[in-house]
Amino acid sequence: MPTYQAPLRDTRFLLNEFLEIGKYRNLPGFENTTPDLIDAILEEGGRIAEEVLFPLNQSGDEEGCHFDNGEVSTPKGFKEAYKTFTEGGWAGLVADPDYGGQGLPRVIGSAFVEMICSANLSFGTYPGLASAAYAAIKKHGSDDQKNTYLPKLANGEWGGTMNLTEPHCGTDLGLMRTKAEPQDDGSFRITGTKIFITAGEHDLTDNIIHLVLARIPGGPEGVRGISLFIVPKFLVNGDGTPGIRNGVVCGSIEKKMGIKASSTCVMNYDDAVGYLLGEEHRGMRAMFTMMNEARLGVGIQGLGLSEVAYQNAAAYAKERLQGRGLKGVAAPDKPADPIIVHPDVRKMLLTMRSFNEGARALALWMALQTDLAERHPEESVRRDADELVSLMMPIVKAYLTDMGFESVNWGVQCFGGHGYIREHGMEQFVRDTRITQLYEGTSGIQALDLVGRKLPAHMGRSLRQFFHPVDAFIRENMSDPAMKDFVLPLAKSFARLQQATAWIAEQGLKDPEQAGAASADYLKMFGHVALAYMWARMARISNEKLADGAGDRDFFEAKLMVGRFFMTKTLPDTSALLSKITAGAAPLMAMDADAF
Amino acid sequence: MPTYQAPLRDTRFLLNEFLEIGKYRNLPGFENTTPDLIDAILEEGGRIAEEVLFPLNQSGDEEGCHFDNGEVSTPKGFKEAYKTFTEGGWAGLVADPDYGGQGLPRVIGSAFVEMICSANLSFGTYPGLASAAYAAIKKHGSDDQKNTYLPKLANGEWGGTMNLTEPHCGTDLGLMRTKAEPQDDGSFRITGTKIFITAGEHDLTDNIIHLVLARIPGGPEGVRGISLFIVPKFLVNGDGTPGIRNGVVCGSIEKKMGIKASSTCVMNYDDAVGYLLGEEHRGMRAMFTMMNEARLGVGIQGLGLSEVAYQNAAAYAKERLQGRGLKGVAAPDKPADPIIVHPDVRKMLLTMRSFNEGARALALWMALQTDLAERHPEESVRRDADELVSLMMPIVKAYLTDMGFESVNWGVQCFGGHGYIREHGMEQFVRDTRITQLYEGTSGIQALDLVGRKLPAHMGRSLRQFFHPVDAFIRENMSDPAMKDFVLPLAKSFARLQQATAWIAEQGLKDPEQAGAASADYLKMFGHVALAYMWARMARISNEKLADGAGDRDFFEAKLMVGRFFMTKTLPDTSALLSKITAGAAPLMAMDADAF
Repeated sequence: MPTYQAPLRDTRFLLNEFLEIGKYRNLPGFENTTPDLIDAILEEGGRIAEEVLFPLNQSGDEEGCHFDNGEVSTPKGFKEAYKTFTEGGWAGLVADPDYGGQGLPRVIGSAFVEMICSANLSFGTYPGLASAAYAAIKKHGSDDQKNTYLPKLANGEWGGTMNLTEPHCGTDLGLMRTKAEPQDDGSFRITGTKIFITAGEHDLTDNIIHLVLARIPGGPEGVRGISLFIVPKFLVNGDGTPGIRNGVVCGSIEKKMGIKASSTCVMNYDDAVGYLLGEEHRGMRAMFTMMNEARLGVGIQGLGLSEVAYQNAAAYAKERLQGRGLKGVAAPDKPADPIIVHPDVRKMLLTMRSFNEGARALALWMALQTDLAERHPEESVRRDADELVSLMMPIVKAYLTDMGFESVNWGVQCFGGHGYIREHGMEQFVRDTRITQLYEGTSGIQALDLVGRKLPAHMGRSLRQFFHPVDAFIRENMSDPAMKDFVLPLAKSFARLQQATAWIAEQGLKDPEQAGAASADYLKMFGHVALAYMWARMARISNEKLADGAGDRDFFEAKLMVGRFFMTKTLPDTSALLSKITAGAAPLMAMDADAF
Repeated sequence: MPTYQAPLRDTRFLLNEFLEIGKYRNLPGFENTTPDLIDAILEEGGRIAEEVLFPLNQSGDEEGCHFDNGEVSTPKGFKEAYKTFTEGGWAGLVADPDYGGQGLPRVIGSAFVEMICSANLSFGTYPGLASAAYAAIKKHGSDDQKNTYLPKLANGEWGGTMNLTEPHCGTDLGLMRTKAEPQDDGSFRITGTKIFITAGEHDLTDNIIHLVLARIPGGPEGVRGISLFIVPKFLVNGDGTPGIRNGVVCGSIEKKMGIKASSTCVMNYDDAVGYLLGEEHRGMRAMFTMMNEARLGVGIQGLGLSEVAYQNAAAYAKERLQGRGLKGVAAPDKPADPIIVHPDVRKMLLTMRSFNEGARALALWMALQTDLAERHPEESVRRDADELVSLMMPIVKAYLTDMGFESVNWGVQCFGGHGYIREHGMEQFVRDTRITQLYEGTSGIQALDLVGRKLPAHMGRSLRQFFHPVDAFIRENMSDPAMKDFVLPLAKSFARLQQATAWIAEQGLKDPEQAGAASADYLKMFGHVALAYMWARMARISNEKLADGAGDRDFFEAKLMVGRFFMTKTLPDTSALLSKITAGAAPLMAMDADAF
C-alpha cells in the first residue's frame, strides 16, 4: 500500500525563505501570514490530505464512479470526506471573506492544492471545478449573481463545472454548436451537448452550477460569437435554496485510463434555463481570464503526483534487498543490499526529486505572482507580475505535466515488476498523471500559445519579465565560487534559450510553421532553464544558511546535492533541444499527409 | 475503435532488400524463403493478427482473466482464437520440423511476432511462453524429454512457463528459496512459491509445462546452486497423454496495469514432481542461454505496440478537424483543417514512425544474426553473429521498450482528451507497453549488463562487431552527396558513442559506480546510434532504388523523409547524453541513503 506525507519542510522553506512572503504583509490577505500561521495551515492541510483524502485514493480508483439513469454516485467514502473537507473551510481557502472564504493568498492555496493532488487527484477535481466556477462568477458576474452563487461555491455546499468541449470540437471552440435562445425575461434557453465535463454530475453537493459556453443565434461566426452562461442544475429559489430541476442531465460518464473517481460527463442541455455571465459574445474572453489559474492548477497536479510517486519509490529503494553494491557489500548484516546503493536507482530517484523541488519552487513563485498581479497596490508591479504569469503559464502547465508524467514512470521503474501490480499504487499514479498532459489544453497547444502569443506579447516585454531577472542573477553570482556549480550551467542553458528565442523570432516571422515546428522543444527548453533558475536561487539561499551556521544543515546540504544533480543530469538536454529547434520545420513538413 | 494493418510492405523491404535473406538459401530453414513464400507467410500471418487476434484485444482488456479456486479462464473468444492460431501451425513457425515445427528462420518468425504484439500482446504471451519452454528443452533436454514435450509445445497443444521470480527475489536470483529434493527414481520433489508467472495457469491448453528454477539441498549458495526443472501440470502418461495432476497450483492472479488478458500467476509448488533439465546447479546458465531470444522478443513487443499506436494516431490526425493551418486554410471545403497540417502533430507522428521503422530494421537484423549464430556453416560467422547478438540484446530490449513507451504516449497525445478514453484503445497501448520495460530484466538491469558484461566481453571484440561495420559504412558513404543528410549525423553521433565508450572503459575500471552511473544514458545513446545506422543503410538502398527508377517511388521517398526526421529530431539527443555520462557518478552518490 502506498503512503504519503505532505512536504511541509520544503513548502515552508519556499514560502518563508525562498519567496519571503512575509515581505508582502501590506497586501490584502497577506496581513496575518506569519510563519506560525503558515505552519498551522500547512500542517492541518497536510493532515486532511494524508488522513482523509489519501486513504480513499486507491479504493476510489478501484470502484470508480457509478452512473445510473442520469445520476452519478462517487465511490465509497467520498461523501464523508467531502463533508470533512468543506466543514474545515478548505473549499474556500482563497475565496473572498465577503463571500465566506478564508481570503488567503493563492501562494498558500497552491501549496495546499499540491497536497490534494498528491493525495487524491480524483477527489480534488470536485472542489477544483467549484473554485473555477467561483472565480469566473467573481470576475464576471453581476452583484446579484455573486450574492446568489459565490457563498455556496465558497463553502462547498454547491459544486461547479466548466462546459467548453463538444464532440466535434475541443481545441477549436469556433466550431461550437450549443445554442442559447434569449427569453423575454432576460434569461436564455440553452440546448446542446457538452462532453468531457469534469464533475458534471455527482452526489457530493446539493446543487451544481454549470458554466456553459454557447452561441446566441444571430451572433458572429467563430469564437467571437460565443457567450458564457450560468446554468444551475437546480434553479435557485428566492431564498437561495435549490428549487426546481433545470433542463440539464448527465447522459453518460466516460470510461477512462485514470482519475476514475472523478466523473467525466456527457452533459445534455435541453432548453435549460441559463443566465448570461459577463457580456454577450465575450464568453471566450471571460474563459481566457480564468485560464492562467486553471493552467497553474493542472501544472501543480503533475507536481503533486510526481511527489507522491517519489516518496513511495524512495521508500521502496531503501527497503528492497536485491544483489550487492557495485563496490562490494554495503549491508553485511542483510542477505542483500537495498537497491538504493545502485547509481542507476539513485539516478531515477534524483530525476524525480530534482524535478519536484524545482517545480514546486516555480509553481509557488508563479502563484505569488498571481497574488501580486491581483492585489499589489502599485500598478507597475501588478502589470509586471501579470505579464510574467501570462508568459510562464503555458510552460508551467505543459512542462510540469510532461515532466511529471516522466517522473511517475521513473517511480514505477524503481519498483521493477512490482510497479506494474495495482496494489502498490504506483501504476495508478501513471494513469492519473496522464490526463494532466491532455486537459485544459494539450501540451502541444500550450507550446503554440507560448511561441505564437506569449513570445511576441507587448513587443517582447513579457519575455523580458523572465529574461531580465535571470540575467541579473547570473551577473550577481558569477564570481561567487560557491555558486559555480549552479551559475555556469544556468548561464550556458540560458544562452541556448536566448539563441533559440532569437531563431524562432526571426524564422517564425518569415514562416509561422517554423515557430510551430520549434514550439514543443522550445517550451521544454524554457522549462528546463526556469527550473535551473529556481535551483540556482535555492542554492544561493542554502549556501547562505550553511555559511550562517543556521540549523537544519541536512536540509540545506541535500538541497545543494539535489540541485547539482539537476544541473548535471537534466539540464544538458537543452543542448539537444537547441539542435532540434534549429533543424527547422522542413523534416516535419516534407511528407504529404497521405504518406503518413 | 482502433484498427490495425500488418506492416507488410515495410517488412518485405527489410527481409528482401535490406537484409537480403535470399543470400542465405544454403542455411537450414532458409532453403525455400523466396520472396513469394515470404509474402505468403507474412500475408497469412497478418490476416491472423488483424482478423483473429486484434478484435479480441479491447474486449480481453475489459474482461481480463478470471480466477476461481486455482483455475484461470481467459477472456471470451481467446480459446477459439487459440485454436485457429495453433491449427494454422503458427505456434511452431520456427520450431524444428523433427518435432512438428515449420522450421522457418527466426528472422521471419520475428516479423510475425511483431504482428502478434501489435494485435494482442496479452494473447501473444501464451504461445510466447510455450516457445520459451520449447527452446529451453530443445537446448538442454535429454532425447526422452525432447520427445515427450517438444511436439506438444510446437503444435500448441500444451503451454509452457518460466518460473524464476519469488516474492523476495526478482533481479537477485541468488536469494531463491524454492527447493528440489532428489528422489530415488531420479526425479525431484519441488516445493516453493513463484510469483509473476506469465501464463502460469489458463484454459487454452490440455497441459502446461512449467520450467522451474530451484535449489537442490546441499548445493552451493547463491546462483551457483540453482538447477532447472521440468514440472508438468499433469504428469505425462506412457502414451504421451496428460495423466494425474501434479502438486502445483495457481494461488492467485495479479491485478495489473495492463496485459489483463494474460494471466500473471502466483504458483505454489507443494511436493510437485520435477525432472532435472540440463545439469545440476547449472540452471542459471541454462536460463541465460535463453535470454537473448527472450529479450529480442520483448524488444519487439515495444515495437509492435508502437506500430499499432502510430497507425491509429496517423489515421486520427488525418481525420480530426480542428482549427486551421498556421499558414492559412488547407481544406477550404471543410469546417476546419485536419490536425495533421500542424508541425507539432507531424512531429509526434514522425517521432513514432521513425522509431518504428528503425526499430524494425534493428530487430530483424538481430533476428537474422541469431539465425546465423545457430545455423551458419562457418564457425567464424557463427561466432561473430553470436557476439554481436550478445552485445546488442540489452540494447534491443531496453531501448525498444523505453522508446516504444514514449512512442505510444505520443500516440495518445495526438488524440488529445479522446486518447484518455478507453473506447479509442490508445490508453490500453500505454498500459500494455508499460510492462515491457519491467519484465525480463528492467531497462536498468539491461544497461548494467551492457556496461558491466558486454562492453568488456572478449577484450572488447564484441563491441567491435558493431563498431567496425558502422565505421566501414561511414567511410564508404562519406563522399556520396546523396548520403550527406545521413552519414554526417551518423558520424557525429558515432564519434560521441566512441567517446562515451572510452570514458566508461577508463572511469569504470577505476570505479565501477562510474560505469553504473553512466549505464542508462549510454544504452540510450547506443540505441540512438544503432537506429541511425539502420536509417543510413535504409537510406542508401532507397537512394539506389530511386536512382534505378524502380517502382514504388512513394515508399522509398517516404523512407528518406522519415529517416531525415530521425537524424535531425531524435539523434541530437546523443549530445546531451554525452554530457550526462561524462558528468560522472558524484551527483548520484553524494547523498546519504537516509536523505532520500
